[in-house]
Amino acid sequence: MSAPSYEYAAAWQVSQWMNTPDDLTLDSFRGKVVVVHAFQMLCPGCVSHGIPQAKAIHNAFPLDKLRVVGLHTVFEHHDAMGPVSLKAFIHEYRIPFPVGIDRHSPDNPVPLTMQAYGLQGTPSLILIDQKGYIRLHHFGQLDDLRVGAAIGQLLTEGAT
Amino acid sequence: MSAPSYEYAAAWQVSQWMNTPDDLTLDSFRGKVVVVHAFQMLCPGCVSHGIPQAKAIHNAFPLDKLRVVGLHTVFEHHDAMGPVSLKAFIHEYRIPFPVGIDRHSPDNPVPLTMQAYGLQGTPSLILIDQKGYIRLHHFGQLDDLRVGAAIGQLLTEGAT
Amino acid sequence: MSAPSYEYAAAWQVSQWMNTPDDLTLDSFRGKVVVVHAFQMLCPGCVSHGIPQAKAIHNAFPLDKLRVVGLHTVFEHHDAMGPVSLKAFIHEYRIPFPVGIDRHSPDNPVPLTMQAYGLQGTPSLILIDQKGYIRLHHFGQLDDLRVGAAIGQLLTEGAT
Amino acid sequence: MSAPSYEYAAAWQVSQWMNTPDDLTLDSFRGKVVVVHAFQMLCPGCVSHGIPQAKAIHNAFPLDKLRVVGLHTVFEHHDAMGPVSLKAFIHEYRIPFPVGIDRHSPDNPVPLTMQAYGLQGTPSLILIDQKGYIRLHHFGQLDDLRVGAAIGQLLTEGAT
Repeated sequence: MSAPSYEYAAAWQVSQWMNTPDDLTLDSFRGKVVVVHAFQMLCPGCVSHGIPQAKAIHNAFPLDKLRVVGLHTVFEHHDAMGPVSLKAFIHEYRIPFPVGIDRHSPDNPVPLTMQAYGLQGTPSLILIDQKGYIRLHHFGQLDDLRVGAAIGQLLTEGAT
Repeated sequence: MSAPSYEYAAAWQVSQWMNTPDDLTLDSFRGKVVVVHAFQMLCPGCVSHGIPQAKAIHNAFPLDKLRVVGLHTVFEHHDAMGPVSLKAFIHEYRIPFPVGIDRHSPDNPVPLTMQAYGLQGTPSLILIDQKGYIRLHHFGQLDDLRVGAAIGQLLTEGAT
Repeated sequence: MSAPSYEYAAAWQVSQWMNTPDDLTLDSFRGKVVVVHAFQMLCPGCVSHGIPQAKAIHNAFPLDKLRVVGLHTVFEHHDAMGPVSLKAFIHEYRIPFPVGIDRHSPDNPVPLTMQAYGLQGTPSLILIDQKGYIRLHHFGQLDDLRVGAAIGQLLTEGAT
Repeated sequence: MSAPSYEYAAAWQVSQWMNTPDDLTLDSFRGKVVVVHAFQMLCPGCVSHGIPQAKAIHNAFPLDKLRVVGLHTVFEHHDAMGPVSLKAFIHEYRIPFPVGIDRHSPDNPVPLTMQAYGLQGTPSLILIDQKGYIRLHHFGQLDDLRVGAAIGQLLTEGAT
């Protein structure tokens, strides 16, 4: 069931990890389904929809099969959403999964991983299969039923 | 990927079909994923959760891959939920999928298909795979994420 | 604060009362604020919005100050929503306030009280002040904040 | 209907106003009902419940009768919720009413107005009547029906 036409997911460029003792790499999750939730802490649609959905995904599936990773892709109001504010946000909203701060670009308000993945805004949801290919890439809200079906498909496919 | 330990889904015993010109049989859906939503029209949890979920499933997946069927499994207040009332209910709630009236049992308030499937109450959700095996059987509410993941798995598995 | 330009609320014409041992009359509630929730048991907007709001009003205010009365104003699908079905509906939805069945008109599908009040459909909310005048008359959904403010005003006005 | 036993609302101690060209004082609102929503921008209950309710109140009543004022009462994570972050928050959440930053106390993490009003946390809702008395003081969520009823009462009472 390999899908050679899918795009390979780029490595994450993260300046700081929170909620995890380790620097995480996408490569280390090979063999697992990876769900990336790209958000900004002051984005209302992220707070009301994207983050609750990411938490629900984190709680619904076993860690040895699927990993949820938050990516703080700040592209506006940079001074308002620095690491100190993000740390309090993660604490207050009880976010249970690791969050990486997408590395700022020297010449672009859009950070580096957000550029590499071609994200249009926040919230964005990216599903990466067990082999590392991007299988779903959605800007805005996507209902739990369709997200669940996509995850069910990726979990069922073999890793080889 | 066959699962010989799963139980084979029993045939439906229906006294009347609504919302479809044909008498439907489970056998005729072989090769498709089948979602049975067992409900009573005066069951609050069916109206607030089960039926909206069944409608969302019906709208999210293509008809040649997945079919949703309602089963009106009246086991209480029989006089209050007869065919005339059900017909108005289906019209007012704009139910888009076929609904079968589970056949009354001569000696039991629980109707025949509900007995055969061992349902504990309403709403109940039953997922039947492409080969006709019961793969999920849930009484009460089940969130869209988990239902979606189960459907995604069954759609990904082959029919053979 | 009397408002002579308001219309006096007509007497209720009810063929059967449920959820109360007595035949109720509007006159007997003089000195109290009266909230009439006109509904049909198979009206989706009544079930999802109007009835929960009427239950919340019933629970939020003391019975010696305010009374909620349901009025089953069937104007379509008459055979589907008879007294036996309504009784089961009231039981299943745990409606805590009295419900009167609006009396059928011999020559009009719209029942008599619904005609007298000029209701356009269901759900409809009618607020009657302590002196018996209609102060609010709304077809469709009205948010809790505005309904609460109208009730607060009527409770604050004197009965004389 | 004056209520001499109610407590007089203390003056606001605000270090900076946002969303208004003027420094606001409670005295200048005499003759209007005043609704104070005390919040912290990283308080989940404020974002999901308190702020939407305050916006709904602002939209439901005329400005010459009722004024809504936000009070940013930061008592934890002070570095995470400074004026730059609050300004972006007000912009992103489209808050339509004035917001005052409660002045920090030199010797207490709880700011000065929050101390003066004896608030237990955020969100808190304070209703002040047309004469300047505190009539409702609630920490946590309060449903729209009860808030609406309290507002309806204060609007109906005279200012004298």
